[in-house]
Amino acid sequence: MKFKRSERLIDMTNYLMTHPRTLISAGFFIKRYDSAKSSISEDLGIMKATLETQKIGSIEITNGPTGGVRFIPSIGAEEAKTVTEALIKELSEPTRRLPGGYVYMSDILGDPQMIRNIGRILASEYVHSAVDVVMTVETKGIPLAQAVAEQLNVPFIIVRHDAKITEGSTISVNYVSKSSEQIKKMELSKRSLPVQSKVLVVDDFLKGGGTIAAMTNLIQEFDAELIGVSVFAEGSYNGTRSISEYTSVLKVDTSADDTIKITSGNYQKRIFKGEK
Amino acid sequence: MKFKRSERLIDMTNYLMTHPRTLISAGFFIKRYDSAKSSISEDLGIMKATLETQKIGSIEITNGPTGGVRFIPSIGAEEAKTVTEALIKELSEPTRRLPGGYVYMSDILGDPQMIRNIGRILASEYVHSAVDVVMTVETKGIPLAQAVAEQLNVPFIIVRHDAKITEGSTISVNYVSKSSEQIKKMELSKRSLPVQSKVLVVDDFLKGGGTIAAMTNLIQEFDAELIGVSVFAEGSYNGTRSISEYTSVLKVDTSADDTIKITSGNYQKRIFKGEK
Repeated sequence: MKFKRSERLIDMTNYLMTHPRTLISAGFFIKRYDSAKSSISEDLGIMKATLETQKIGSIEITNGPTGGVRFIPSIGAEEAKTVTEALIKELSEPTRRLPGGYVYMSDILGDPQMIRNIGRILASEYVHSAVDVVMTVETKGIPLAQAVAEQLNVPFIIVRHDAKITEGSTISVNYVSKSSEQIKKMELSKRSLPVQSKVLVVDDFLKGGGTIAAMTNLIQEFDAELIGVSVFAEGSYNGTRSISEYTSVLKVDTSADDTIKITSGNYQKRIFKGEK
Repeated sequence: MKFKRSERLIDMTNYLMTHPRTLISAGFFIKRYDSAKSSISEDLGIMKATLETQKIGSIEITNGPTGGVRFIPSIGAEEAKTVTEALIKELSEPTRRLPGGYVYMSDILGDPQMIRNIGRILASEYVHSAVDVVMTVETKGIPLAQAVAEQLNVPFIIVRHDAKITEGSTISVNYVSKSSEQIKKMELSKRSLPVQSKVLVVDDFLKGGGTIAAMTNLIQEFDAELIGVSVFAEGSYNGTRSISEYTSVLKVDTSADDTIKITSGNYQKRIFKGEK
């Protein structure tokens, strides 16, 4: 079946968006649409210009026999700011306050539009990095890990506190949660992380950093490599964090009288380098 | 800024795909692209024809002052079959067998492409239903619940076995897991499920159905309504299941000598009504 340009552009947009960061040969589209190479090249030029203008992402085109196209998803600094401001407004609602200076945010992490946009922000830091896998620990970090992994188009793996028989054999580490001062255990299926994998750690909340430091230990136990740490929110913490390098979308400051102030995290500085 | 047709179609495809089942007024696109109503109508006609031919979904167009367009995602029977066959082949690998007649499938549920396609299959049964929320219980059901919720564009909520302080006050139920014969507890944040919500329950694996029956009880406790049950895989079970109506993508039969046979679940009959 021969496709018209308009039909090709619609299908191609869908195809590229659902296969981010995958190298697709021009031949694939030539065959898929029964169209000439020159038409496909022109399509891809239009696609690249539109996606870049709309700040949805970009198209990398490489020529030559092993060449092809790759859709690199991203988010504009302005859209990221709009997303963050909406989150700050929503999470600052007094009805969200919980005893102990906590903020209710489970619904935000369960909203497909919100979680997708938070994932786009955090993933945009790593779209050009060699990330093999996104790692999180159950439970609340899972939706965000999935959203980031979807944008990067890499698998995500879930570290368990209490692995079930369906995980097969596991490797486990014990750790001290700095904020609760309890000894905890986390374990990961031996099958889930190949040696030398480059791992991006994603979690919903960073406080003392004990949980993330334990994931770092687990990564070492698997002879894999930590590439970065991305969190939805960082909380205030009096003391030295177990980890120093991370990217956060939000910052939640709780003062001694349980007053809460939510502001932007460090993502602007780390991802957009001060770009407006 | 005025958009050309080709640019409009690319941006519109992206917009519709990331806002499934949302009613978007024609006025929104007229303003977004600074284009005439007739041009936008023509764009939407091309969009509808292409998405339907490619079996990506359809566009519902309603006229009149409260009218607009809505992208309804779906998957063709043929593509669903291809997805299922790939899953059966992969999961039938002898290296995936675990002691006790289990199959290792955590990596499948952590693969963005696979989970998206499984989500498309299960969501397609409910794209025309009034579903308010997708519910699952931690941990392994979460990625699938998120994938289904993303297609339906509704929130997903996670029932916890041991809720943390960050969930606020909860309602809990005790239940007996039929397969393990243990008494367990599950709880859900009171804030997460409004009364009269219509709930689609999603889980990774159905065996005796005790866990899903408990979620049904929890739904009643919240004065909400169960709309349906969708699972990735149903296992063999000697006895009467606690639930009788459900949709499954795969069926995993374990015989007395731990031989495993994986076949299609009941989704073809329930979703495609025998369509080829």
